[in-house]
Amino acid sequence: MQHRPRENPSAAALAARVRSGEIRALAKAITLAESTRPADRAAALDLLEALRPPGGTLRIGISGSPGVGKSTFIEAFGLHALGSGHRIAVLTVDPSSQLAGGSILGDKTRMAELSHHPHAYIRPSPAGRTLGGVARRTREAIVLCEAAGFDVVVVETVGVGQSETAVAGMTDVFVLLLAPLAGDELQGIKRGVMELADLVLVNKADGAQADAARRTVAEYRNALHLMRPRTPAWTPKVEACSALAGTGIAEVWREVAGCRTALEASGDWTARRSAQAKEWLREEIEAGVHECLRADPRLTALAAELDEEVEAGRAAPPAAARRLLDAFLTPLRRAPPTPSGRSRP
Amino acid sequence: MQHRPRENPSAAALAARVRSGEIRALAKAITLAESTRPADRAAALDLLEALRPPGGTLRIGISGSPGVGKSTFIEAFGLHALGSGHRIAVLTVDPSSQLAGGSILGDKTRMAELSHHPHAYIRPSPAGRTLGGVARRTREAIVLCEAAGFDVVVVETVGVGQSETAVAGMTDVFVLLLAPLAGDELQGIKRGVMELADLVLVNKADGAQADAARRTVAEYRNALHLMRPRTPAWTPKVEACSALAGTGIAEVWREVAGCRTALEASGDWTARRSAQAKEWLREEIEAGVHECLRADPRLTALAAELDEEVEAGRAAPPAAARRLLDAFLTPLRRAPPTPSGRSRP
Repeated sequence: MQHRPRENPSAAALAARVRSGEIRALAKAITLAESTRPADRAAALDLLEALRPPGGTLRIGISGSPGVGKSTFIEAFGLHALGSGHRIAVLTVDPSSQLAGGSILGDKTRMAELSHHPHAYIRPSPAGRTLGGVARRTREAIVLCEAAGFDVVVVETVGVGQSETAVAGMTDVFVLLLAPLAGDELQGIKRGVMELADLVLVNKADGAQADAARRTVAEYRNALHLMRPRTPAWTPKVEACSALAGTGIAEVWREVAGCRTALEASGDWTARRSAQAKEWLREEIEAGVHECLRADPRLTALAAELDEEVEAGRAAPPAAARRLLDAFLTPLRRAPPTPSGRSRP
Repeated sequence: MQHRPRENPSAAALAARVRSGEIRALAKAITLAESTRPADRAAALDLLEALRPPGGTLRIGISGSPGVGKSTFIEAFGLHALGSGHRIAVLTVDPSSQLAGGSILGDKTRMAELSHHPHAYIRPSPAGRTLGGVARRTREAIVLCEAAGFDVVVVETVGVGQSETAVAGMTDVFVLLLAPLAGDELQGIKRGVMELADLVLVNKADGAQADAARRTVAEYRNALHLMRPRTPAWTPKVEACSALAGTGIAEVWREVAGCRTALEASGDWTARRSAQAKEWLREEIEAGVHECLRADPRLTALAAELDEEVEAGRAAPPAAARRLLDAFLTPLRRAPPTPSGRSRP
C-alpha cells in the first residue's frame, strides 16, 4: 500500500537544506524533533519521512563515568576520524540534565577543537525528560545527522539509570571507557554494562598509571573470557589508550573498523540495525498508546489507581490490566478502525 | 474507586479449593491460566483476583545449561527445603518445548523423589508459545502456587533466548548454576546473565572435577568483583557444591536465606517485588493492545507492512508508528471511553 508524505512545504524546504549539509538547518531540525508541541511533532515526522538516511554510516556508542576522560577521548577520536576524511557528529544521552539549553556533557568548551571543525557537529542532550523520551529523540537526531552528511555519529552517555542499554540499542558498536583500577578497590561497572561492550578501553594509560592500566586490561580480558560473545563474528576486545597523550587512538579506530568489517561480513551488522529499527517502532507505538491514555483524565486516574494497587500487592496485574484495557479499548471494539485514519466511505 | 470481582461461582469454588491446598485444584487452576480460550482467560482472571498471595513467600530463579546438573540440584535443594518444613513448587520457563503436555524440564522422572513428596509440586512449562506468553502465565502460576500454600517457588530455565531475564524478572533471588570450566575453553555464559545472578553455583565439585570447580569459583569471583552489585545490601556470591554428593546444599540454602535477610532489611526485597508487579502490569497492557491490533485484519495487515518497511529501512519508525496509531486510535479520539466499560448514562 503506497502512501504519500503529507503535504508540508516548510518541512520539504528544511529537508532540502539538511540534505545539502547546512549545519543551521540540521540544528533547527533536531530542535524541531525535540519539541513536544503537537504541530512540531507532526512537522518532525514529515521531515523524518523525507530524510531517509544514506547507507554506510557508523554509529558508535560511548559510555564512561565522570572522570574517565570521555570528552578528551571523544575529541582525540573525533579529530582522528576527521583526519581520515569522515564527518562526525556527537550526540549525548543524559536524561538527568537540568541545565537550560543542554548538559555539561557535549559542552563545546570541553571538546573545543572538535567543536570548531567544519566537518564536526556537537549537540548537547535534550534536557529534563525521561530516558525513554531522550532515547527516542536521540534516535531521530542520529537519522537527521546522517541525512546531513555525517557518516560517523557518536552517542555518548555518562551512564545514569539504563542509559547504556538505551545507547547500545541505537548504535552499531558500543565502547565502554574506563579508568585504570587503583589497587584492590571494588569496581564500579554497573551490572549489565560490560556485556554490552564490543570494545572496552582503559584510558589514562600514561605516566604513573601505565602499570595500573595494563593490569586493568588483563582483569577485564579475564572477565570477558567468561562470557559468550553476542555473535561468533566478534569477540569483544580490551585495549589501553591515553587520550591525553594521544596514544592508542589510531588503534582504537582500527578496532572499531575491524569490528564493523567482521559484523558486516557475518550479516550481524544489518541484522542489528533491523532489530533496532523494529524496537524503535515498538517503543513509539507504546509511547503513543500511553499518550492516548494520558489524554483522558478518567483513564489517567484509573491507571494511577491500578498502578498503586498493583505496587502495593492488592491487585493482580493481569486483572488490573484487564480493567484498564476494557475502559480504554471499548470504543474500538464497538467501531472497527479505518486503515489509514480516513473516514470510511 | 471500588470494584467487585465478577460474579463467578465456579471460580469462587475453585479458589476455595486452591486455598485449602488441594493439589488437583491447583493443577486445574494453572491449566485454566494457561488456556487461551477467552472464557478460560476471564475465569482465570477472576481466580487471580480472588487469590491474592500471602506474604512471606520466596521465589527462586535457577538457570543452568543442559548438563550442569540442574534437575539433580533442584531435587537436592528441594528435599533440603522440605526437610526444614517448607512447601516447594517447581515451575519451568521453556518456550521451546514442543512435547505434548510439557517439556523435558520438570519431567517428574528426573526429580523422582521430590515429585512424590506430598509437600512438593512440580509443573512442566506450558508448551509452544512465545517467551512473553510463557513468562506471563508463569507469573500467574507462581501466585496460584503461593495461594495454595507453597511458600517456596522455584522457577527454572535452560536459558534459551531471553528466558533468564524473564525468570530474574519474576523471582526474588536468581541462581546461576554452572559446571566447572574444563581447562582453557571459551566459556559459554550468555552475555547479560552473569549480572542477573545473586548467587553463582559451580556444581559437580566432586571427584575428578573438584580442582576444576575450585578454579572456576575463583575465576567467577574475580569477574564479579569487577561489577557493581545491583544493591549495596547484597554482593553476589560464588560457591561450589555437588548436588550428586549432597555437599554444599545446606550452605546454598543458607546463602539464599542470607540474601533474603539482607534484602529485606535494606528494603530492596519489597522494592523489587513492587517493580516486578508494575512491569508485569506493563507487559499485560502491551499484550492486550497487541491482541486488539491482531483482532482486526486490516490493522494486522497495516502493522505487517509497516514492520517490513521499517526492517528494510524504508520507513522511519516514528512515522510508521504514527500511521499505525492513527488507524488504531481514531475511534478513541472520536468517542471518549467510559472508565469501567459500562455504557455512558
